[in-house]
Amino acid sequence: MSKTNSGNFFEDFRMGQVLEHATPRTVTVGDAALYQALYGGRFALQSSDEFARAHGFPRAPLDDFLAFHVVFGKTVPDISLNAVANLGYADCRFLAPVYPGDTLKAVSEVIGLKENSNRETGVVYVRSRGTNQKGMVVLDYVRWVMVRKRTVEATTPDEHVPALPKAVTADRLAVADNVKFTALESALSGSRHLWGDYAPREKIDHVDGITIEEAEHMLATRLYQNTAKVHFNQFTEGKGRFGRRLIYGGHVISLARSLSFNGLGNAFQIAAINGGRHVAPCFAGNTVFAWSEILERAELPGRTDLGALRIRTIATKDMPCTEFPGAVDKGYADGVILDLDYWVLIPR
Amino acid sequence: MSKTNSGNFFEDFRMGQVLEHATPRTVTVGDAALYQALYGGRFALQSSDEFARAHGFPRAPLDDFLAFHVVFGKTVPDISLNAVANLGYADCRFLAPVYPGDTLKAVSEVIGLKENSNRETGVVYVRSRGTNQKGMVVLDYVRWVMVRKRTVEATTPDEHVPALPKAVTADRLAVADNVKFTALESALSGSRHLWGDYAPREKIDHVDGITIEEAEHMLATRLYQNTAKVHFNQFTEGKGRFGRRLIYGGHVISLARSLSFNGLGNAFQIAAINGGRHVAPCFAGNTVFAWSEILERAELPGRTDLGALRIRTIATKDMPCTEFPGAVDKGYADGVILDLDYWVLIPR
Amino acid sequence: MSKTNSGNFFEDFRMGQVLEHATPRTVTVGDAALYQALYGGRFALQSSDEFARAHGFPRAPLDDFLAFHVVFGKTVPDISLNAVANLGYADCRFLAPVYPGDTLKAVSEVIGLKENSNRETGVVYVRSRGTNQKGMVVLDYVRWVMVRKRTVEATTPDEHVPALPKAVTADRLAVADNVKFTALESALSGSRHLWGDYAPREKIDHVDGITIEEAEHMLATRLYQNTAKVHFNQFTEGKGRFGRRLIYGGHVISLARSLSFNGLGNAFQIAAINGGRHVAPCFAGNTVFAWSEILERAELPGRTDLGALRIRTIATKDMPCTEFPGAVDKGYADGVILDLDYWVLIPR
Repeated sequence: MSKTNSGNFFEDFRMGQVLEHATPRTVTVGDAALYQALYGGRFALQSSDEFARAHGFPRAPLDDFLAFHVVFGKTVPDISLNAVANLGYADCRFLAPVYPGDTLKAVSEVIGLKENSNRETGVVYVRSRGTNQKGMVVLDYVRWVMVRKRTVEATTPDEHVPALPKAVTADRLAVADNVKFTALESALSGSRHLWGDYAPREKIDHVDGITIEEAEHMLATRLYQNTAKVHFNQFTEGKGRFGRRLIYGGHVISLARSLSFNGLGNAFQIAAINGGRHVAPCFAGNTVFAWSEILERAELPGRTDLGALRIRTIATKDMPCTEFPGAVDKGYADGVILDLDYWVLIPR
Repeated sequence: MSKTNSGNFFEDFRMGQVLEHATPRTVTVGDAALYQALYGGRFALQSSDEFARAHGFPRAPLDDFLAFHVVFGKTVPDISLNAVANLGYADCRFLAPVYPGDTLKAVSEVIGLKENSNRETGVVYVRSRGTNQKGMVVLDYVRWVMVRKRTVEATTPDEHVPALPKAVTADRLAVADNVKFTALESALSGSRHLWGDYAPREKIDHVDGITIEEAEHMLATRLYQNTAKVHFNQFTEGKGRFGRRLIYGGHVISLARSLSFNGLGNAFQIAAINGGRHVAPCFAGNTVFAWSEILERAELPGRTDLGALRIRTIATKDMPCTEFPGAVDKGYADGVILDLDYWVLIPR
Repeated sequence: MSKTNSGNFFEDFRMGQVLEHATPRTVTVGDAALYQALYGGRFALQSSDEFARAHGFPRAPLDDFLAFHVVFGKTVPDISLNAVANLGYADCRFLAPVYPGDTLKAVSEVIGLKENSNRETGVVYVRSRGTNQKGMVVLDYVRWVMVRKRTVEATTPDEHVPALPKAVTADRLAVADNVKFTALESALSGSRHLWGDYAPREKIDHVDGITIEEAEHMLATRLYQNTAKVHFNQFTEGKGRFGRRLIYGGHVISLARSLSFNGLGNAFQIAAINGGRHVAPCFAGNTVFAWSEILERAELPGRTDLGALRIRTIATKDMPCTEFPGAVDKGYADGVILDLDYWVLIPR
């Protein structure tokens, strides 16, 4: 039997199956520095141990999306090595901050299976959980992905499509223990705008654009130990559909989040992802821009110092966002590459 | 009111105004590793905790220019987001080593203002100070920058041009506490040449050249949280004056400093910058070379183990420095991109 | 006398000469993160402090080849700055794990000298040793390199060619103290295949390919403080033999090692390098693939939990390894760039 991993095909999955993923990963200040260099983030909480301590954290936590990418990367060899498309995310909650020195691992459970009518592919729904070395769940999310079958003839389990929430409700958002956001120094955070200053339907153009280089997205994706082949191999991809390497969708998410500082400087933590769609592929040489719309403003149970904003951030390629390009009649305006719906925590 | 930062324009500045800059930044061994990978430095003091301890440091300090770039980066959103040109530096002193784990923040004071006769721009002089988490000033410098006015008609304050020293005098150079450079192991430092071996007017060609890639200067500049738009956005810059992204001047300074190891291997610390000029723009694909001239050799009050050298380092692009290209009649020889006048500390 | 290092020429070396190399280097989690981002490794031992502790290590050691490259880099300014070709390695043993925080330095002894008949070059054999801050030898290897003479006329020492082992014998492989590989969690390591599952003559195609960018190999080579000019200077190399920068051979070794995870996931540690050959040059834009053949399977004295595999890994450029391209009649198949013979430790 071959010793190389050829990944699971659709018919290999079973409802309720639990997959414990390799490789556990200790994340460090080295990862934080690389993440900083890759995206240029300026949120004070993740940048400064002193600022973090002033608000009840033991030290600066790692960027929430760095934790997400590391956990996500672990699931790739078992879940999506034979994927045709990453279809969606739901019910993603960030349950505990991740700190330098923490060791992350990931487990997924198959919660849905649905063969496509062509019998060549099927949709696999998994709930994935990232845990730290104390066994605390730091991240919990559902994703579904279209996976190839090894053989068209293979019989497959009964169809089961899980019920998934359209959005995480505000009462299910987690706030880390001992955190307090009274006495915010807005000079240090870089923004005077707090929870109450944002209103539903408000739109913010994040103005700046960042061009992506091949070296950058590959450094990032390897940092996350994400092994999806399409990101790394120009020899093969050069002969493929796009003629070039595809950029990991998470790289675009991180760029958009970083750009969003300009307008959302106090939105320190990602609390949940309600849904996300990689609308179009992104390639090296593209310049990424972003804008956001405030969808909801929610109080958090028992907190007067922090509130939650539900935000939709749209990222584009080679198109500034002064006109707020987004969904149109049959899909999305040209140039839109990401539509992300998420909750942030922000001081009141 | 817009929530995005559009920066200060010339008429927004006032004499004596104090600007506390976002975002505080904890620098780590992760930053040191990236700095190493970006510039390839070989100065033993910054490379080895053991070497540093042998000379009275608690551990290897971060590269002085890494500290400079981090502090400088903080000032950009408030001082130079609407700058036309970075005109100069003066009276820049490195007052305390920066170690992994330190948290840096920056404050600037407006010390001079001078509107230009066209009334479209004006020169802003600021003294910026970087401090660590103990409140110690680690870096103190003046820079002046030409900033656009929001409107030509805007009235502006009375002209005030500060008196600035041509150079920092040697008696104002700081030496860290407890440092001793007796018993230097020159095999480890890579150079046998000490303070007394260098003489004013001596010229040293640093020989090697390093080609810059787009990914590298963007990784560097984001690491420093420097948000100047011209470095990152090919979509916009492609339509601009140069047709491409401009490399952060500090990236060239760090490359020149790293190249200078070959000839100045024991010049462990930057003590001051007397002045600096980015003579011409630098772009990805350029190969940077450098040479240095010893300007002065100074004793340090009360020290027999350490002395200071005032050095002028010239960096060029796509031009080896065997002929020591530098200032010519009306400016600089073709290919010169940097003219930096600074003090280093070096064992005697 | 010039203060810049022009390196040693063949006639400068003497039998028995000891060269203590600059610059000592403290390696950190920052270096580990960069190494991760550059190569995408997934071996659990180097990735997770928890996994490492479960097997008797105090924490996750750094990748063995990172230690190798750092030690190797130190020898370049003294040994191979005037090299025409790096001819070979032998008797290379990894004697102790290297951990974040360790400080490495290197010493070489000249063990052989042989002038070439054209009198323009000669072969220098050195035994190089990397030590940590406790004085423990972490790496010990022989390499030989063809070095230019400064002048053809220079007289040179008597010829001495050292006897070198074809391979390190299994009884000379080092296992770190207190290590135990009972109770391996194969779900975490990503592979179920142990020592006994591999048989001599078995061939494994590692399947995946990784394209190299200029920024990546330069970041890597500077991280190792390797100053060989051919890797960095497009201005000069553009006029040279290849018209472009040559990629450091060690970069290819690290890529091949990382690719070998797919098929050799439990081969946690490199114990020795028996020999290695950089068969052809590699350039940015090339996509590297790899395959391995098991050469020997050896027990380790007194160990029932660990065994050794002697492996030959071949790397190619722009050529998938499904056909196991390797040595052919007069050299190597087109596309082969590396032929590496080494020992790994793997749980039984």
